Amino acid sequence: MTTRSRGRPPGGSSGDTKGAILAAARTQFAARGFSGTSLRSIATEAGVDASLISHYFGDKSQLLVESMQLPVNPIEKIATVVEGGPDGMAERLLRTFLSAWDPHREVFSALIRTTLGGGDTDAPMLQLARNILISRLLEVLEGDDRELRATLIASQLIGMATLRYVAQLDPLDDAPIEEVVRVYAPTMQRLIDG
Amino acid sequence: MTTRSRGRPPGGSSGDTKGAILAAARTQFAARGFSGTSLRSIATEAGVDASLISHYFGDKSQLLVESMQLPVNPIEKIATVVEGGPDGMAERLLRTFLSAWDPHREVFSALIRTTLGGGDTDAPMLQLARNILISRLLEVLEGDDRELRATLIASQLIGMATLRYVAQLDPLDDAPIEEVVRVYAPTMQRLIDG
Repeated sequence: MTTRSRGRPPGGSSGDTKGAILAAARTQFAARGFSGTSLRSIATEAGVDASLISHYFGDKSQLLVESMQLPVNPIEKIATVVEGGPDGMAERLLRTFLSAWDPHREVFSALIRTTLGGGDTDAPMLQLARNILISRLLEVLEGDDRELRATLIASQLIGMATLRYVAQLDPLDDAPIEEVVRVYAPTMQRLIDG
Repeated sequence: MTTRSRGRPPGGSSGDTKGAILAAARTQFAARGFSGTSLRSIATEAGVDASLISHYFGDKSQLLVESMQLPVNPIEKIATVVEGGPDGMAERLLRTFLSAWDPHREVFSALIRTTLGGGDTDAPMLQLARNILISRLLEVLEGDDRELRATLIASQLIGMATLRYVAQLDPLDDAPIEEVVRVYAPTMQRLIDG
């Protein structure tokens, strides 16, 4: 087992190892939630050294995203939004979110349906909302009520995506991205500024 | 059959008749959607005269609400919000919505889960959003983009309720109603004012 910590398990391709790690990650995130899962517990289940997970996937958030097999990487997307600071952040957030998900609306729709249909309050998408979206928003937001405001921003994105992609409510379902940004960004920016 | 148009079917109690109407309404709203369903088609399926439906339930919107067996009547709730006009409407909308649904959060949660889990773009709850919430908001909103703004307001309510009742995202899940109103109403009011 110790040889696996050098980045390649004996007798197996790196693809097999990555697959075993992702399978273990999916099982554990689903069963224990994000905070109940550790790289070490995933490593044990996958039969690899924990350092190999870091080597292949980085940190636990990145492993969550990889295990969800999303067509876009929300960690990278939210980074570009947050790194510009609070000025104009709502515009960047809405434009980035819609540009990323509009081409994959069926995937987002399936994700919402699975997440909300199942009623699991610790479903992977909600772990993602908490540990990637909201936690990064909190780096920028200020004020005593910033946690409530961050969850409300998340609720705006989820509500908008739900009506645009799942319920397909006219005219939100096919309003041009820049039209949604123009109409909605000032509203969302209020929650960012507080 | 014609005797039923006088308000009471032969050999049956009014409870039986109401039950037959509601059962037919549920079937048809689910199968044909709101616009594809008429009081006449429901009357035919229930074996009663259409005038009896009006007598018992009023119009088609009221029949939709009755057929959903909700613990609150959204038609009455939205009426109190809209009738005050645009000033302070976001506050009234949020306070009314949360006061009505907080005591019945399990019902709303089940409704969201059924609606979104099923992926039916014409599910009763979405018919209700379109034909009761949004259509009444449009009586108050002004401007060329008022339809988009009305759907975004609906998305704010659905997103908030989803994270508060279904996903139970802290701290939105148990923030006091007046705290949510204070933080969120100015944001929502922007969409009302345009």
